[in-house]
Amino acid sequence: MGRTVYSVEKYKGLSPAEFFYRNKEMAGFANPIRAVYQTIRELLENSLDATELHGILPEIEIHISQLEENIVKIKVKDNGIGVPEKEVPLVFGRVFYGSKYDLRQTRGVFGLGIKMALLYSQITTGKPIYIMSSTTQSPIIYEYALMIDISRNIPIVLKHNIYKKTNNFHGTIVELMLEGNWIGARKRILEYIKRTAIIAPYAKIVFKAPNIDLKYDRVTKILPEPPKYGKPHPYGTDIEMLKRLISGCNSSLTLREFLLDMFEGIGEKTVKDFLKWAGLNGSFRIKSFTLNELNILARKLREYPGWRRPRAIPLSPIGEKLLKEGIKKILKPEYVTAVTRKPSSYRGHPFIVEAAIAIGGEVPLLDKPFLLRYANKIPLLYDEGADVARKVLDSIKWNYYKVKFPNRIAVIVHLCSTKIPFKGVGKEAIADVPEIENEIENAVKDCARRLRRHISRTERIHRLRQKKTIILKYLPEVIRSLKIITSIDENILKQKILKILERELKKRSLVRVNE
Amino acid sequence: MGRTVYSVEKYKGLSPAEFFYRNKEMAGFANPIRAVYQTIRELLENSLDATELHGILPEIEIHISQLEENIVKIKVKDNGIGVPEKEVPLVFGRVFYGSKYDLRQTRGVFGLGIKMALLYSQITTGKPIYIMSSTTQSPIIYEYALMIDISRNIPIVLKHNIYKKTNNFHGTIVELMLEGNWIGARKRILEYIKRTAIIAPYAKIVFKAPNIDLKYDRVTKILPEPPKYGKPHPYGTDIEMLKRLISGCNSSLTLREFLLDMFEGIGEKTVKDFLKWAGLNGSFRIKSFTLNELNILARKLREYPGWRRPRAIPLSPIGEKLLKEGIKKILKPEYVTAVTRKPSSYRGHPFIVEAAIAIGGEVPLLDKPFLLRYANKIPLLYDEGADVARKVLDSIKWNYYKVKFPNRIAVIVHLCSTKIPFKGVGKEAIADVPEIENEIENAVKDCARRLRRHISRTERIHRLRQKKTIILKYLPEVIRSLKIITSIDENILKQKILKILERELKKRSLVRVNE
Repeated sequence: MGRTVYSVEKYKGLSPAEFFYRNKEMAGFANPIRAVYQTIRELLENSLDATELHGILPEIEIHISQLEENIVKIKVKDNGIGVPEKEVPLVFGRVFYGSKYDLRQTRGVFGLGIKMALLYSQITTGKPIYIMSSTTQSPIIYEYALMIDISRNIPIVLKHNIYKKTNNFHGTIVELMLEGNWIGARKRILEYIKRTAIIAPYAKIVFKAPNIDLKYDRVTKILPEPPKYGKPHPYGTDIEMLKRLISGCNSSLTLREFLLDMFEGIGEKTVKDFLKWAGLNGSFRIKSFTLNELNILARKLREYPGWRRPRAIPLSPIGEKLLKEGIKKILKPEYVTAVTRKPSSYRGHPFIVEAAIAIGGEVPLLDKPFLLRYANKIPLLYDEGADVARKVLDSIKWNYYKVKFPNRIAVIVHLCSTKIPFKGVGKEAIADVPEIENEIENAVKDCARRLRRHISRTERIHRLRQKKTIILKYLPEVIRSLKIITSIDENILKQKILKILERELKKRSLVRVNE
Repeated sequence: MGRTVYSVEKYKGLSPAEFFYRNKEMAGFANPIRAVYQTIRELLENSLDATELHGILPEIEIHISQLEENIVKIKVKDNGIGVPEKEVPLVFGRVFYGSKYDLRQTRGVFGLGIKMALLYSQITTGKPIYIMSSTTQSPIIYEYALMIDISRNIPIVLKHNIYKKTNNFHGTIVELMLEGNWIGARKRILEYIKRTAIIAPYAKIVFKAPNIDLKYDRVTKILPEPPKYGKPHPYGTDIEMLKRLISGCNSSLTLREFLLDMFEGIGEKTVKDFLKWAGLNGSFRIKSFTLNELNILARKLREYPGWRRPRAIPLSPIGEKLLKEGIKKILKPEYVTAVTRKPSSYRGHPFIVEAAIAIGGEVPLLDKPFLLRYANKIPLLYDEGADVARKVLDSIKWNYYKVKFPNRIAVIVHLCSTKIPFKGVGKEAIADVPEIENEIENAVKDCARRLRRHISRTERIHRLRQKKTIILKYLPEVIRSLKIITSIDENILKQKILKILERELKKRSLVRVNE
């Protein structure tokens, strides 16, 4: 007759390192194949960020060796700005620690990837990760061997040496070992490197692995303009963001000054119009606002219809010219066209879509367009079916653009943003945000229209050539008749007619087909 | 001529709360529609875990009201075991804190969902979350108002009251407000509740919202056996796991004893065979192992081919009978069949697949099977295209099973595991792990074969009925002829022949069609 006794729950907290130790697959470390792929990706992406974000032409070397049947050693060296000595342990050995949490376009964003590589290496081989680095200004080179205390999310320094710099080296060298399936991962990794070379034609990448010795030379020495730090846009405001912005402010700062200083897209006129619309007094001190007043301010900032769209200064698209050069080098197409759309935005985040279409050459023959996806210059190889770009491509009526399948047609889509809406921390698929979907569609259709003109022109030239053949066939008969009528010499007649014919054909083949 | 000065990176760390504040969309809080949906999901799933995991028949009330155009108030009440008083702040206000990090099947797994609801509520409305709870043993009821310090990932207690319990209430009541789009989310939420009722037919769910007053009564009082805590399986071993298991051990514990005590599927014989295969001495003390020795041990444990597959004690499938009852109640089909497969495993994690097929009734008419996905009794509504179950269904040749489209056919797939390989923390799509894919295929095909038998039988009965009609048409003629030959009374002849006919038809319609 006693009361039922229920089991008692045991409660505990996890460090972020432990969370991702338990959920490795979410960060791309799902199995021995993906682990090798993801590790190389993270290292290469860090190296590219460490160079081109700072105006350095990237020179990156990747060495892979297989130690035992399933133990892979990976070494990556770059000529980047290096990691400051005191930051090395945390940058490599603490989940959610990094330099890429600001408003600008970078490949890395989560402060997670390289830590996952260290963690995976450690739990599968028991070995530390080795780092050698030097910043551009530093007179020394420093070396670390690190592991991670997973339950406390803190780095463990096993070795720390300092050497005097004898040359002008700057950059970072990372070496680690992990249990992985190199053979299984090889194809995807080579594809990943190739696609990186398309989007970063200014990078020199050396790739050495068992029976592989690849070198991607740069095709240009022009770097795209590096992104600058941006300010938040009012459309993306929430209470937390306001509190943070305010915490760093001077106590005499007024609401009006606060809006002018802290936000993207707010000028003298806009702030006046906004304050009037919102019924707010711009001369109140921002530090004196209560939580409830901040709540109202945040909502008004989100809802005001008159903001300018964010500018693209934190973005660094590759540009039509470089994009085409990269594609030409790698895919060797018969025809390529590229477009960089104007900046757009979603929920206060600026973004730019670039697209290109290439046909022929080394593009594979398929029943649908071969899609090459990029986000902030990162090639995305997995989960294509879940990506917004695939959705857009599947919705386009390609026969309207005179494209018939099977065909060798590649579509390249590149999204740049301060905030890529990835579906997961593994950075593989982009969510279907309507504004982004729309811009991808516009970009691809821009290219497709040009492709249609190209195809029309090719068809027209082909038809004109056929016409010429027919005319030439009957020409002797025509000339004979003309000679009887005009008594002009046959050779002169022939030359004159041929000249007219050539001129006409040339003129018509250059005419742009009216769509 | 000076040296180039490069910009210096600014480094910082994020708390897990801040990480998910920045990446809300990964946890399902992508927009005002998803935010309402996700909040209700998380609350309902917590309530179901708080009841059925402990043998309590769930009684859950959900109240939704729209305060302003885009402010939604959500209140959920359950009769669960309650959250202990001192745990309330961390359970609701600290990311990665919870009671579901052990080896057993629960709906919640990440310690993230309810914190995201609190965080989202706070940043969009500035309001705290209200919690009232009491455990089964407690003489008091306690009330909290909480917010979260996002940058430090700690709860802020705004109110904490204690009341003497005057009735025998136990459970939890949660109330919060958020900026959300209730109208936009309504359809999905109703579908979510309906699908929950299918998989939890023992739950009583009351759902009240503007112009909606729904009640799902339980169809059974039988709860599935709650899951028990399991031990790790050697296939999933890594160095980190070994270190943790060892840290709690007695210093005299030998390797042999350690393996017997700590792992699933290791008995006296298995441990002997393993030690021999691995060339390890079972009498060495486990606490004396070096990191390198642990590395070897971990690899041997992963690679030994002789382990038994994990048992299913941490799992709690719903079972064929309950599954069919749930489906019958909600979809009212003409025919339903269900199967619970035997336990299987991937990388040391036990799992069970259940499937059901229902046709007719209220199943929608579609060009392909209508898929209802579940993971640990959670209905999955988004990202179907990225889910392994959709992939399996699309690969099945339905005409082999006599299914023609368009048709009203629903396929229900339920995966139970101590570790569901979700593609993201939003818990919407399951990754294509080969072992799981295979079991889903087997489960669906088991059902499909039964469906084919059902269809064959239906067709056969239909054909026999047609035959009977024809026979009856010519019967008078036959009887007249027979009477002339046998001189037996027409009525007697007719009765006898009809009896034979009925018996034959009945016999044939019951024959199982041989496949």
